[in-house]
Amino acid sequence: MKRLMEKMKKISWVAALAVLPATPAFAEVSSESQYIFNTLLFLMGGFLVMWMAAGFCMLEAGLVRNKNVATMCLKNIGIYAIAGVMYYLIGYNLMYSGVDGGWIGSVAWWIADDSAALAEAADFGGGYAAASDWFFQMVFVATAASIVSGTLAERIKLFPFLIFSAILTGLIYPIQGAWQWGGGWLSEMGFADFAGSTIVHSVGGWAALSGALILGARKGKYGPDGRVHPMPGSNLPLATLGTFILWLGWFGFNGASQLAMGSAADAVAISNIFANTNMAAAGGVVAAILLTKVMYKKVDLTMALNGALAGLVSITAGPDTPTIGEAILIGAVGGGLVVFAVPFFDKLKIDDVVGALSVHLVGGIWGTMVVPFTNADISFVTQFIGVLSIGAFVFILSAVFWFILKMTVGIRMSEEEEIRGGDIFELGLEAYPEFGRGSQKV
Amino acid sequence: MKRLMEKMKKISWVAALAVLPATPAFAEVSSESQYIFNTLLFLMGGFLVMWMAAGFCMLEAGLVRNKNVATMCLKNIGIYAIAGVMYYLIGYNLMYSGVDGGWIGSVAWWIADDSAALAEAADFGGGYAAASDWFFQMVFVATAASIVSGTLAERIKLFPFLIFSAILTGLIYPIQGAWQWGGGWLSEMGFADFAGSTIVHSVGGWAALSGALILGARKGKYGPDGRVHPMPGSNLPLATLGTFILWLGWFGFNGASQLAMGSAADAVAISNIFANTNMAAAGGVVAAILLTKVMYKKVDLTMALNGALAGLVSITAGPDTPTIGEAILIGAVGGGLVVFAVPFFDKLKIDDVVGALSVHLVGGIWGTMVVPFTNADISFVTQFIGVLSIGAFVFILSAVFWFILKMTVGIRMSEEEEIRGGDIFELGLEAYPEFGRGSQKV
Amino acid sequence: MKRLMEKMKKISWVAALAVLPATPAFAEVSSESQYIFNTLLFLMGGFLVMWMAAGFCMLEAGLVRNKNVATMCLKNIGIYAIAGVMYYLIGYNLMYSGVDGGWIGSVAWWIADDSAALAEAADFGGGYAAASDWFFQMVFVATAASIVSGTLAERIKLFPFLIFSAILTGLIYPIQGAWQWGGGWLSEMGFADFAGSTIVHSVGGWAALSGALILGARKGKYGPDGRVHPMPGSNLPLATLGTFILWLGWFGFNGASQLAMGSAADAVAISNIFANTNMAAAGGVVAAILLTKVMYKKVDLTMALNGALAGLVSITAGPDTPTIGEAILIGAVGGGLVVFAVPFFDKLKIDDVVGALSVHLVGGIWGTMVVPFTNADISFVTQFIGVLSIGAFVFILSAVFWFILKMTVGIRMSEEEEIRGGDIFELGLEAYPEFGRGSQKV
Repeated sequence: MKRLMEKMKKISWVAALAVLPATPAFAEVSSESQYIFNTLLFLMGGFLVMWMAAGFCMLEAGLVRNKNVATMCLKNIGIYAIAGVMYYLIGYNLMYSGVDGGWIGSVAWWIADDSAALAEAADFGGGYAAASDWFFQMVFVATAASIVSGTLAERIKLFPFLIFSAILTGLIYPIQGAWQWGGGWLSEMGFADFAGSTIVHSVGGWAALSGALILGARKGKYGPDGRVHPMPGSNLPLATLGTFILWLGWFGFNGASQLAMGSAADAVAISNIFANTNMAAAGGVVAAILLTKVMYKKVDLTMALNGALAGLVSITAGPDTPTIGEAILIGAVGGGLVVFAVPFFDKLKIDDVVGALSVHLVGGIWGTMVVPFTNADISFVTQFIGVLSIGAFVFILSAVFWFILKMTVGIRMSEEEEIRGGDIFELGLEAYPEFGRGSQKV
Repeated sequence: MKRLMEKMKKISWVAALAVLPATPAFAEVSSESQYIFNTLLFLMGGFLVMWMAAGFCMLEAGLVRNKNVATMCLKNIGIYAIAGVMYYLIGYNLMYSGVDGGWIGSVAWWIADDSAALAEAADFGGGYAAASDWFFQMVFVATAASIVSGTLAERIKLFPFLIFSAILTGLIYPIQGAWQWGGGWLSEMGFADFAGSTIVHSVGGWAALSGALILGARKGKYGPDGRVHPMPGSNLPLATLGTFILWLGWFGFNGASQLAMGSAADAVAISNIFANTNMAAAGGVVAAILLTKVMYKKVDLTMALNGALAGLVSITAGPDTPTIGEAILIGAVGGGLVVFAVPFFDKLKIDDVVGALSVHLVGGIWGTMVVPFTNADISFVTQFIGVLSIGAFVFILSAVFWFILKMTVGIRMSEEEEIRGGDIFELGLEAYPEFGRGSQKV
Repeated sequence: MKRLMEKMKKISWVAALAVLPATPAFAEVSSESQYIFNTLLFLMGGFLVMWMAAGFCMLEAGLVRNKNVATMCLKNIGIYAIAGVMYYLIGYNLMYSGVDGGWIGSVAWWIADDSAALAEAADFGGGYAAASDWFFQMVFVATAASIVSGTLAERIKLFPFLIFSAILTGLIYPIQGAWQWGGGWLSEMGFADFAGSTIVHSVGGWAALSGALILGARKGKYGPDGRVHPMPGSNLPLATLGTFILWLGWFGFNGASQLAMGSAADAVAISNIFANTNMAAAGGVVAAILLTKVMYKKVDLTMALNGALAGLVSITAGPDTPTIGEAILIGAVGGGLVVFAVPFFDKLKIDDVVGALSVHLVGGIWGTMVVPFTNADISFVTQFIGVLSIGAFVFILSAVFWFILKMTVGIRMSEEEEIRGGDIFELGLEAYPEFGRGSQKV
């Protein structure tokens, strides 16, 4: 308040020209203004989530070895493009059109319908521009697809991967999404997943897990004696940049999942979501730093980055109800879980190149199950049913498709390809032709 | 709708405190609210387009060789700064002040005039804050300048390049801009270029083309036997990042070119523009991936990146009228054209280091000419006249200035400078002193 | 205006469906709309300033040597997380709660209170959602902390640095912030610091300066003969990216410091701030390019980057009152000062790895002192008192804490650690394991 008063002084140069606006004589937001605010929220949220595609790309490109960096980049820009096309052609309506408490929507491509708002006797009631909603939903499906590429990096063949991404974004993701966000059976049950700890993040995780099991680990990752051979990422500042990009994009991911900005109550909710989203990530970072220092005497940068991301995933199922203190705790547990989950998956010889399972699958389950702690309307049992049913559906269906791809076109690089790297074999180029090892060939 | 209802449940914690806003009793947006929405659109669009300067910088820095990376960075931050200064000193009024159906505006620096909105009897009618418009227009001129630096990289001298950028942004761009956006003769003819496929992108392309012809190719690029010697970019994830940045920024570029956000109709239009912009880029990526796979058996990452950009350029002349399906096609053709245009320019021995001619010039022409397909009000003939007249004007005037610079200060590095690289000669440093070749000198 | 009319034509496809909105019958913005606009400004400004954390990280990671890059990344993500936690636990209320013309606020963690806006008889008067304000203030404190890490890089131990960051963000920053933005004694005196040239940037600078003096220079930086041994940054495009990120984020930093967007007067002010912020940076770039060319015959890229940042710092104390021409000049002087300040600090053997003192301390003082030139309401004497009192407070208190840390846990790496680099010793990994020198070990 003080600062606001100070501001009044600051703009005295303006005040010379104009009297400062008196408190308006009326309070309400007009329905057309609401329509604009809602649309604006989707567009802002949408471009922030679109930016997460760059975040995943940088994170994953930084965490693979030189010889697979360019392939990683191609996959990430490729799946973002494919996700949009598939979601337009089939996904959106499969998820949102005529689900009505059921299991699946309708098969049709998406067509914008803004007739109500543009009619002469316009009706703006609670609405938003159709394409703003489509855009916002579309960037979410791209996020789910981005998760898979990290886990399966460095040994999966390019085109089978892109085909799977098309299936995931056109079919698997939309169907389970219909259960909840499309108004299907899970939503009628009272399942809560505000912005997608389960529906987006764990879905990417389950699809990645089934792929990792069917694909197998990278050559030499797990020694015959059970030792884990480290294969360090080639560019850690790039991975750090990717994490910051994802953190930034998450404000759109969670904030715009409020789905409306046309009232003060919405503005309050979005603000709480922003603060909680940020602080869950902060909690994840602090937990990962402290835990790795205590456990390994060194602070692991990649764990800190994954700690931030796990914090973000953890808060995503319910970013609106916690206090900031609770958000920090939820995120810290998520970040802590990563520190244990990464070696755990290695123990199982499940080779997850960038730690995406620990972040998105483990964090997604944790985030979904913790919602009832800060939201008394939500039941643990229902949350558990949601996590389990979506997990089983995605894991099994993904496995079926991975298996079909394996049996038909094949999903794994040859041993020689894997040793020399995807960049040479799939793309015929090098990501960094003049650096390090690469430079010896120039 | 379902999801909105679910949201209602979600914010039940808020509902405990406040009754949810009833549908307001009135629909209209007040004129002052419109003023704020319009201004906000320019500011958001402006900062997104400003961010494209970083995108061009990363794209170009990633696609040149180590020895010219720092110079590329300096050029990009330099031209963004110079563009702003020149546009303030002369460009804006040359483009927008008193054109009145003619060929050119007036010569005067820009001064903000917000007196109507700040008057005691304030008039907000259809308006926006003067500086928000100036800011938005200014970042566009910077975009045009950024295109040139990529084509001419690795052999042009730094200061002549900066001088040309000042001329382009203070003189060439504003004059042709006046013809259309300033309300000049082309706009009276009915030419359509919503956000600048021609006015921004092809202009950068024409200026780059005339520069490339006068400057000549890099030493050794084209062998005496007609073979093209590849000179691969030094940092492909950086180029990928640049592409994602440009993609993000393009939402501002096209979306805010709606120029108003104060009505539901505007909100609908901006949303359609966002979706179409995104999907044209997606179409460009998919086309480039498939075409390079078919033609070369390998998927070319740099083609995929340029495919995205070409898709974006292609949709820019008319992002508001296509359906999403049409936008995908428009972008796919743009992306496909890149795959053919890059070897075509090489055949002509026009050395375009980053492929900017294929993206911005070819894509810009295609995007402008395709507008009548989705917009029945627009004529092919007029589009052709616009493309041709602006192309001729910019190409010839640029050639004149390049030639003058060549005759006076010289525009080309010496052979030794070119071999050792701009970084050592112009800046006296290395972009990556400890990597690869560079490390041998440390 | 012309272009707006053209736009009207453009959206004729929409006009077919809807009559374009007539000028509304009323002008005023409703109080709830104001509330939403204000909140939106904080959220947008907040996410842009959050993004500056990535900017500092990339800038600093690009300007240190390979062996300290990963540590730099860890510090930057770590302090951003810690800053949020500390500001929640103690900082915010220390700065903003019950200062009332005094020296310090109250000790309590922050709790959101939106009861007025959410009450049944809602009162939106001039307000905003509590968490949007908290979020915006929090990202500012993180900025101050980010400044310190650059100066002290390559020789400070990780945990003592993180502990100091916690003290700075939880204690030192909030107390001096209370003096002005919290409504304390300096604000009552008439001190002006719109967005924090002094309160954020010089504060980071003073804390860094006291740390640099107590910590000492890097081994070998200053030869016994007084020669300065250059230790060039390892990744200049990364540093360039960081600079562009900071430039982008600064629109939020300065623009949203207007603190309100619910009136046309606010929209005008924010727009002027955007334009001035941009052009001050542009002025800084141009000044640094020209000065280094004249003085050293080579254009120094890192000086150009720091010139941009110094321009931004310089305009931050008063971005609302200058004309664009004045903003260019203010920024150009800031950028020019960097060119002289960097060798000046080297002469004093104060080892500032990234030039943060020249940018944030020198630029911050300059920016604060120049405010009266464009704002007649402000007195030089008061500005001087503000700069001096905050400088003395932060410098001395920081020195006390640095000294305590030095005496207890120690703040400096061992000589061996410093030679081999923080990445190996603190994190046990390499930032670029396959590039350059690093590759020899693989």
